Formats: sequence, structure tokens, C-alpha cells
Amino acid sequence: MGVGDVSKRILLGRKLRSSQLGETLLPKRIALPVFASDALSSVAYAPDEVFIMLSLAGASMYVWSWKIALAVAVVMAAVIASYRQTVHAYPSGGGDYEVATVNLGRTAGTTVASALLVDYILTVAVSISSGAQYAASAIGPLSGHEATFAIVLVLLLTAMNLRGIRESGGFFAVPTYLFMVAIFAMVAFGLVEMLSGNLPAAESAKLTIVPDDRYEGALTTFGLLFLLARAFSSGCAALTGVEAISNGVPAFKRPKSKNAATTLLLLALIAITMMVSVIALAREMGVRMVDPADQGRLLDNGVPVGDTYDQHTVISQIARGVFHDFSPGFYLTVSITGVILVLAANTAFNGFPVLGSILARDGLAPRALGSRGDRLAYSNGIVFLAVMACILIWVFDAETTRLIQLYIVGVFVSFNLSQLGMIRHWTRELRTERNAAARRRMYRSRVINTIGLSFTGVVLVIILITKFLAGAWITLLAMAVFFVLMNGIRHHYDRVAEELAADEEDKVLPTRVHAIVLVSKLHKPTLRALAFAKATRPNALEGVYVATDPASTNALVKEWDDRNIDIPLKMLHSPYRELVRPIVQYATEIRKASPRGVVAVYIPEYVVGRWWEQLLHNQTALRLKGRLLFTPGVMVISVPYQLASSEAARERRMREDLRTRAGDLRTGRLRREDDRVGRRR
Amino acid sequence: MGVGDVSKRILLGRKLRSSQLGETLLPKRIALPVFASDALSSVAYAPDEVFIMLSLAGASMYVWSWKIALAVAVVMAAVIASYRQTVHAYPSGGGDYEVATVNLGRTAGTTVASALLVDYILTVAVSISSGAQYAASAIGPLSGHEATFAIVLVLLLTAMNLRGIRESGGFFAVPTYLFMVAIFAMVAFGLVEMLSGNLPAAESAKLTIVPDDRYEGALTTFGLLFLLARAFSSGCAALTGVEAISNGVPAFKRPKSKNAATTLLLLALIAITMMVSVIALAREMGVRMVDPADQGRLLDNGVPVGDTYDQHTVISQIARGVFHDFSPGFYLTVSITGVILVLAANTAFNGFPVLGSILARDGLAPRALGSRGDRLAYSNGIVFLAVMACILIWVFDAETTRLIQLYIVGVFVSFNLSQLGMIRHWTRELRTERNAAARRRMYRSRVINTIGLSFTGVVLVIILITKFLAGAWITLLAMAVFFVLMNGIRHHYDRVAEELAADEEDKVLPTRVHAIVLVSKLHKPTLRALAFAKATRPNALEGVYVATDPASTNALVKEWDDRNIDIPLKMLHSPYRELVRPIVQYATEIRKASPRGVVAVYIPEYVVGRWWEQLLHNQTALRLKGRLLFTPGVMVISVPYQLASSEAARERRMREDLRTRAGDLRTGRLRREDDRVGRRR
Repeated sequence: MGVGDVSKRILLGRKLRSSQLGETLLPKRIALPVFASDALSSVAYAPDEVFIMLSLAGASMYVWSWKIALAVAVVMAAVIASYRQTVHAYPSGGGDYEVATVNLGRTAGTTVASALLVDYILTVAVSISSGAQYAASAIGPLSGHEATFAIVLVLLLTAMNLRGIRESGGFFAVPTYLFMVAIFAMVAFGLVEMLSGNLPAAESAKLTIVPDDRYEGALTTFGLLFLLARAFSSGCAALTGVEAISNGVPAFKRPKSKNAATTLLLLALIAITMMVSVIALAREMGVRMVDPADQGRLLDNGVPVGDTYDQHTVISQIARGVFHDFSPGFYLTVSITGVILVLAANTAFNGFPVLGSILARDGLAPRALGSRGDRLAYSNGIVFLAVMACILIWVFDAETTRLIQLYIVGVFVSFNLSQLGMIRHWTRELRTERNAAARRRMYRSRVINTIGLSFTGVVLVIILITKFLAGAWITLLAMAVFFVLMNGIRHHYDRVAEELAADEEDKVLPTRVHAIVLVSKLHKPTLRALAFAKATRPNALEGVYVATDPASTNALVKEWDDRNIDIPLKMLHSPYRELVRPIVQYATEIRKASPRGVVAVYIPEYVVGRWWEQLLHNQTALRLKGRLLFTPGVMVISVPYQLASSEAARERRMREDLRTRAGDLRTGRLRREDDRVGRRR
Repeated sequence: MGVGDVSKRILLGRKLRSSQLGETLLPKRIALPVFASDALSSVAYAPDEVFIMLSLAGASMYVWSWKIALAVAVVMAAVIASYRQTVHAYPSGGGDYEVATVNLGRTAGTTVASALLVDYILTVAVSISSGAQYAASAIGPLSGHEATFAIVLVLLLTAMNLRGIRESGGFFAVPTYLFMVAIFAMVAFGLVEMLSGNLPAAESAKLTIVPDDRYEGALTTFGLLFLLARAFSSGCAALTGVEAISNGVPAFKRPKSKNAATTLLLLALIAITMMVSVIALAREMGVRMVDPADQGRLLDNGVPVGDTYDQHTVISQIARGVFHDFSPGFYLTVSITGVILVLAANTAFNGFPVLGSILARDGLAPRALGSRGDRLAYSNGIVFLAVMACILIWVFDAETTRLIQLYIVGVFVSFNLSQLGMIRHWTRELRTERNAAARRRMYRSRVINTIGLSFTGVVLVIILITKFLAGAWITLLAMAVFFVLMNGIRHHYDRVAEELAADEEDKVLPTRVHAIVLVSKLHKPTLRALAFAKATRPNALEGVYVATDPASTNALVKEWDDRNIDIPLKMLHSPYRELVRPIVQYATEIRKASPRGVVAVYIPEYVVGRWWEQLLHNQTALRLKGRLLFTPGVMVISVPYQLASSEAARERRMREDLRTRAGDLRTGRLRREDDRVGRRR
């Protein structure tokens, strides 16, 4: 058993180390990139959407672009200020779902959960679609195949997450900080060029834009307002992802709430600066963008550019212009933006299982999602997310402009319910709090949350008005489906819990235990099952054999006698080689003879390690167990006998247990680096 | 519990009746159609193949057709004479596999099994393809879509067999006898017309055939011989299915062997008469046929008929001619021929699971196939058969002429090994038999089998020579794959059996039983599991709870005290909501503390009835059981608690048990008609 010994030693070693699997709390400088990639990545597409929407009434409307940017920045500031309150109020992690459920009740919570589920799907679809556009702007041959490329990216991410990638702080920190550096360098470069009067025009600056039919001629005030509202609501895509930190407070270093709040503030400053400066710079450089589905409105010297024209994203146009004599700068900026978008999509892959486990705990999702380590459940979730995202990408041809119409409804639904919940929270706290300073802080927080709510409320209304027909209805429909599904699951669990509620009579002991050991052959597993059964000293014990043909029956009886087995052997006649039915019938009869007793059915099983071996063994045992479980008054005892090949499988499963799973980092569940190193020794 | 009572009464009623599910032995008049449909159906395509092969050297070769028919008839007579000996020697059912295994050993048996498996697939493919051609000759619009239609037919058959059709004698008797009547009526009609000089020419009589390039000019003797050999070996397709009766002897009325032998004789007479007379009549009527893939060789007034020409099967050409002024005769003949071909395919669907259960008994196939009632195993077999047949039909475009090249290799491999086995059998018997009369009979039987072997041996060589490149290699390859697979499975079972062989020390009782009851909540299932565990009076008993969060842990501890449960409760700490690993570890530790004891893990489970409820429950229990089985010294006890919804599922499963399954009729496993009627009362 040399190999067994070695493998056992490996296992024991591993087991020891597994106890070290502990919390690695994140310092601010690491927490920022971990939680910010989603929020920051939206600067890669939100400015584009503002320009595209304004272009409906022609390039002259671009004068509004930086005002819209400011409006978005104001909303973002209000939202982040609100979430700073949440972070203080819920140091154990106050996700929108949590806040809404605790303060507003089940229905609000379930609504938020539906919104978040839809949101995760859209985060993947939008980020990856945008990433594919960046890839296409850097790699020419990809143009026109963005959807295919995006789907390939999603599949790659899915494979990585199914396999289990070990996210670490560095995994996020390096690209996120690089992204910040790249964007700020680009902005600074542009600023220097502008001040020195050398700011080059964007590649699209020479183009003119024909207004859309609906916006031809002089705009009415209402028309103008509607247009600005549409542009504004598209720009609000920049707000997606800011709530991530409030979910992740427990992963922060102490003092958790304070650190989280500071990180939120940092995030706000960076995100707002980035967005406003990108939009301002784009405006200066004369970037021209229209809806890619409607490129006919873009004229070059009065001639439509046609479908072959490649409309590049705002950041790549700026980078190409600003870094005109330094092409590595362009490539670095564009590729790091692409990477950050993929990272943002990956956060959805991580968030989905975490949300699933929270929903499972509350009975809104299958309970199996709630425990760590159910690979199957995790995998199902990840595959579901990927499939839905791929469908969206395929249907909308990876056009960010069309996907964005679906995107932010969900985000703002959860913002609103969360703010409302926070107001309720403070009001409730104020009822009991007596300390004047604390009360003052609470009042202040409530005011901030109220301001936040008024902003997000207005934005939600604007979004619903301007985007409902453009795609938001799909999101609302999907949310409704999730809502109904989750309520159905909860209802089912409630019903079962009611049926299972204990009463006193359930403690009554069965009067007798009648044990039967199923015998198919007299081999080690059967002998072990007989021994185990005997060790439990039942009131009655017998071996049961289903006799399908006389020859093997006689052989068994002879061996039973030869081996001097002091347990009676019962024969069940089954001329047609049926196994399950005779046993179930016999168990039912025993139970009928003594209705207050219990029948213990011992099934010898041998455990094999390989999947194809599974197909060759125990199928009948499996079926039998399935059937016996439906028979009242029966308990089914599996007595395993481990074959040599099972050892390998056991090791494999132990390794599985220790594997990193999607969402581990964000819940503070990470192995320490030194442990990693230790293992290699 | 009114509904429960009613359903229980229904169940009890059913249980009573199920005991009546008994053997219905078949009289000869029913056994003939049950076992003959496959053999007789080949008259629908074998004559065609003879004409098509001969046409390679032009229509002048058709003079050989009836001589070839006679040669096939002689071989068939020899084979059937041989099988009559088998039927007497193996009254308990001597299929080719049985005979080869018993007399020639494992390898021969496995070879025959591989041949039979391939054969079943080809029976479906050939019969259904031919049936599709008949359908196309009666229903014009189907022409050109034979392959699609054939695949639809296979899928229909598959669905019927998965669902479980109740085959009865009548199911076979009516169409088989109708088929005989139709063919004989057609022949008689034709004979009368011929004698009165009114025999009409076949629709294709006016066509001329251009010889194939290879057969142009004067034929060499070798060339002629090769051509005749090819035509003969195609005609031998008529022999497929004659072995069916020797498998089914136990289903015959007593005296079983004698009745089976008589039925075989009848079958031979009918099949030979049919084939010879159909070929003779076709020759008289001037039927012209070429390979449908090569219709360019068919000229109408010197002009190729082209691809649009519909070449009809021999029987439909004869029927159209003979019944020229009585079109119902034509339609009846053609449609009953189509039906008989579908019936023939259905016999393969029935034979496959029966063969599977025999192979499983001998350890050549997964053991689960061996017991009746494993729906999943049966279904997998049926689906496998259907998929393989569909692939063949699709690849060969439902052209019987090309499929036939693959078909009869397998049949003749098993014929040969079976004959060889019979010779061995008689030789062995003669060694012990002293009775002179019996010895004489044995000598005679051995002579007959030797003659049979010499015939089938020659035919096999002819088939291999003439068809190897035309497709027989595919069959041989498939046989090799099955052979290797079955040997691998056997090897695995042998190895496991060796590992499991019992020795004395296996009887040693465990020194103590340490029972742990897994507690997730204090509901009825848990209380029941605690009660059951207590009833088995283990040496140590404790409840085990995996504590994932303090709130629910405290709630549970409180309830545990409130309910005065006199069993200690052990807490396992699991901050990351892992459930499986802590429990497995705890069980391992207990076992380590007392290595000669056994750990009994009680898992409370609640049993639900609907598939989606399964998804919502017990996933963790399932995973836990899977893991605990790999842990040495542990036994796993499922304590089921049946929820209301499980009752419906229990009834459903009981109904399943009583359902007819593919192959039931042939093994004499049939419910009586009066029982059917009784149930309706």
C-alpha cells in the first residue's frame, strides 16, 4: 500500500493546511481595485452613449455634453454619499437586497433580488460587448465580428470561472491601477496639448451629422428636454457598480465601515473625474458619434460614410488623437480598457453565486445554492449567467448602445428601494436612540439618504419614460419572471416547513427494529453489511436474497451454510429477474405486521472511483434506495465497501473542496499567499 | 386521508393483480407470426437485391435469378434443419450466443454477441429503409424523401418502445397472416394469369439495362462466378431472422421443443415458397432493376431514364402488374408489406433489451441491464439502437441496396459459430450417452449441423469476399468495437469480484457503533431520525449540527432544550457555510479514535414527489451521502420522511413496474387478457 500511504500523507498535509484557509482582510489600496473595476469600467462606454443620444438632433447638441456629464456626476455624488451611510449602518455588509428586505419587507427584497439578477446578466453582456468594441478598434480584422468575439470572451470567462480561478488582490489591483494611470495620463496629455494649442482633432471631427427624422428642424422645448433626458439616462450607466462596496464591507480591514466609506469616497472622486474629463476632452476634440445601427446619418463631405465605416469608441478616438505621435500610448490605453471591461464582467460571475447563496439562505432559491462547495449549483449558476448573457449579446449583436437601454433600469430599481430602506432604517433607529450626538448623525444620514432617494427616484422615472420602449420593458419582464419564480420557491419551502413542523408525538420511539440485509452474493461488502447490521443489535435480523434462478440460489444457500453464517436467510421469489419490487413489497409487509416498528434495510455497496465504473455498479442499489425512501417506516442503510480505485476519487474530491470558487475573494474567503508557498515546499 | 385511502385501495387492488402477471404460453398458430415476421419480411427486399446484383452484367443475366433463388432456398433449408436440432438440444432457449458460449467458450460467445448487437442495429436500418421504399411506391410525394421518412419511422418506433407498447399475439398474428395471404394471393393470381396467357409485363419490362463498365463485353468465367456469388450473397438476406425461434423456445406451449421445431419447419416452407415464387414471377414479368445509385444504366428506348425515374420494389412491381385491374389488391399488398417491415424492425427493439439482460447476467454488459424494470437501462438501450440505426439510414440515404452489404455478415458469423457449437455439443453428448436410439438421433443431428455449418461456412466466405469492400468492413469494425468493450467490462467485473472475494476475517463484528444524527432543523424528519437512531441502541449517540451562523445556532440549541431532547448535541463550526466537509471530517475523527468501531451517520430526508421539488430539496443530503460512502468505517442511514406529495410519485412508480416493456412477449412475460378486462371492471 505504498501509493496509498503516500497519498494519505499528501491528504493529511492538505487537511492541516485547509484549516488555515482563513480571512484575508483587504486594505483600502487593494479593496479599491477589487470593488471598483465594475464602476470605473463604465467610463469606457457611458460617454459614448451620451454623444450618441445627443447626435439624434445633430452635432450642435454636443454643447450639452459636459452639462450632462455634470448632472450624472451630481447624481453619482448623491448616490455615493447615500451608500456611505449604508456602509456605516450595516458593517456586516448591507447589500441592496439586505437593506430592502430588512427595512421594507419581503416583497421589496425580492424585487431588488430580481433586479440584481437581471443586472448581473446585463453587466456581463454590456461590459463584454463594449470590450469587444475596444478590441475591434485596436485589432482591425475583428471589426464586424464583435458579437462572435464577445461570445467567445464570455465562454472563456465561463470556463475560467467553472474551473475556479484564484482571484487575488493583485489580480484586480494591477489592471485597475493601470487603467486609472492610462486614463489620467491620456487626460493630462490632452490637457497639456490643449493648453499649448496643439490638441489634435479626433478622427471623426471632420464628419457632419444629419439629425434623425424625428429631430429635424427646430426642436420644441419638450423635444429638447426629452432628448437631454435620454442622453442623461444613458450617461447614468456610469453609476452601475458603485453599490459593490456596500456588499463587501466584511472583507475590509478594520475599522471596516470607516475604510469602506473612505474607499467609496475615493471611488466617487476617481469615477467622476474620469467621466467629466473624458467627455470634456471628447467635446474639445470634436468627436462625432451616431448610433452604429444608423451610420447613414454620418456624412463625410456630404457623402454618407456607409456601413463600412468603423466608428470607434470615445476613449479610443481620444487616445488615438492625443497619442498621435506615440502609438504605444494608444494601444496601452485601449487594451487596458478592454481588460478592465472583462474584469467588470468577471465581477458578475463572482457576484452571482454570492447572491445565490444569500437568496438560498432566505428560501428564495434552491437551498443547495446556500452551502459552499456545491460545485454543481455554482456551475449551474455560472452557466445560466453565461447563456443569458450570450443570448443578449447575440440578439443585440453586441451593440452596447442597444444593450444600455436595458441595463440601468435594474440598477436604479435597487438604488431606489435601498435608499427607501435606509430612510426607514434611520427613522426606526431614531425611535430608540437617546444619545444626542448619535441622533444628530442619524438625522444627517437620513437627510442624505432622502436626497439620494430623490435623485435616484427622478432618474428612475426619466429612465422609464425615455427607455421603456427602447428595451427597458425586456428588463422589467425578466424581473417579473424572476420575482414570480422566487416567490414560488419561497411558497413551496414555507409549505414544506409547515408540513414538517414538529409536535410531541414525533419523539415516540419505534417499538422494534427489524433489520434486513440485502444479499446478492457472499462477498466482502455483504459480510461487512451483515456484521454492521449485527452490531446494531436489532430485534430481528435476516439476510434477504431475491432468487431469480435456481442455480445461483442453490450456490448461495450452500455458501451461506459453509460459512456458518448465523443469520437466517430469507428467499424472495422473482421469476422475471425483478429485484426492486419484491424487496419493496417485503419491507412493506414487515412494516404492516408491526406498524409501530421500523424496517432497517441494509444495502451493501462497493464504492468505485471512476465515472465509468459507476455506470457498471450499484445502479440497482441506487434505484432500490430511491424506491425504499418512498416506503413509510423504512430506513435505508448504505454500507459502503471502498474498492482500491475509490481512493483516487476521494483525493480528487478533497482537492475540489479546497479549490477557489467564484465569489470567494469578495466574501473574504481566501487562502493566504504564504499557505500557497507552503504547499509547494 | 380520504384520497390516501382511495389511492391505497387502488394500489392494493393492483398489487393483487400484479401477482397474476404470469406466463402466457404461445400456441403454434400464434408463435409463428410472433417469431416469423423478421424472417418473412426479408422477402420484401432480398429478391430485389438479387435482380440488382445480376443487372450489373445486363438484363441477360436475369436467367440466373431463379437458380440463385433455389440456392438460397437450399441454404435456408439447411440452416433451418440445423436450428431444429438446436431447438431440441436447448429446450430452455438456445440462442446463438448461448450455444456458442456453452460449447465454444467465452471468446466465441462474445463474438456472437457482438455480431448480434450489430445485427439488431442493421435489422432496424434495413427493414425501415425498405419499408420507406414501399411507402414511397404507394404514396407518390414520398419519393426522394425516403431517408427522412425512414428516420421518422424509427423515431416513432423508439417512442412507442420507450413508452412501452403491449405486444400481444394478435399484434403480430393479424399483419403477418395478412402478409402471407397477400403474397400468396398475388402469386396465385399471377400464376392463373400466366397459365391463361394473360400475365401482364412489369412496369419496368420495356426498359433495357446497360451493363456496368466492369462487366462490359463477354464475361470471363471468374467474372461470372463472382457476379453470381454477389447476387447469391445478397439473396441470403432472406435468411435473417430464422434464428429467432430458437431463442424463444420457452415461450412455446408444451411440448415446447417439438412445437418450436414444427413452427420452424412451417416458417422454412413459407419463406422458401414465397421467395422462389416471387423471384420466378418477377422474372416472368420482365422486372428490370438496377442499383438506385446508378440509374443511368437504365434506358427507355435508348434514353437514360434519369434520376427522376422511380424504381419500384419487386413486390410492388409484381403487384401493380398482377392486380392491374384491381388497384385495392396492389395497395393492400404494398401496405401490408410495409407494415411487416416495421414489425420486423420492432423485433429488434424487443430483442435488444433481452440480449442486453443476458449479456449483463454474464458480466459482458453493465449489470443494471440484467434486472427487469430498470427503465433507464432499457431506455438507454433502445435509444442507442435507434440512434445507431438513424445514423446508418442517414449515411446510406435509406438505400437498402447499400445497407444490405453490411447486413448479413453478422448474421452468418453467428450462424457459423452456432453450428460449430452444436457439433461440439453433440460430440460431447455422445461421449456420455449410452442409449442406442438416442445416439442415433445425436449422430443424425450432428450430421445435419455439419451440413448446416458447411453451407453457412461457404456462404460466409462468399459474403466476405464479395462484400468486404462494399461495406462488410464497417460491420466487422463495429463488431470488433463491441467485442473489445464487452471484454473490458468483463475484465473489470472479474477484477472487482476478486477484490471482493470474502475471507474469514470479514465476519468480525465492529466493536462499537457510534451513531450521529445530522440535524439541520428540529422538524419531523429530524425527530424521526433521532427516534430511529435511538431505537437501534448504539454505543454512543449524538446529534450533530453544522453551525454556520450564531443566530440559527442559538435558536436550535434553545429548541433542543425546550423539547427536552435527551441526546447530546455536537456543534461543528463552519464559518464559510460548508456543510459536507466538517461532517466528513468529524466522522473520520470518530473512526480514528476507535478504528474497530463503525460510525453510523443518520441523515433525515424528506421525500417529495415532483421532479422540481427534488431540485429544491435534499441536494446537500445527496452530496453528503456521496462523500460519506468514500469514508472507511462509515455507514450511511437515510431516514425518509414522506411528504404528502410523495404519495403520487409512489403510485406512479408502481404503475411503471407493471408496465409492458420491450421484449416481454418474447420471454413469455405477459399479462393475461382476462386480467386486462378485470381491471376495467
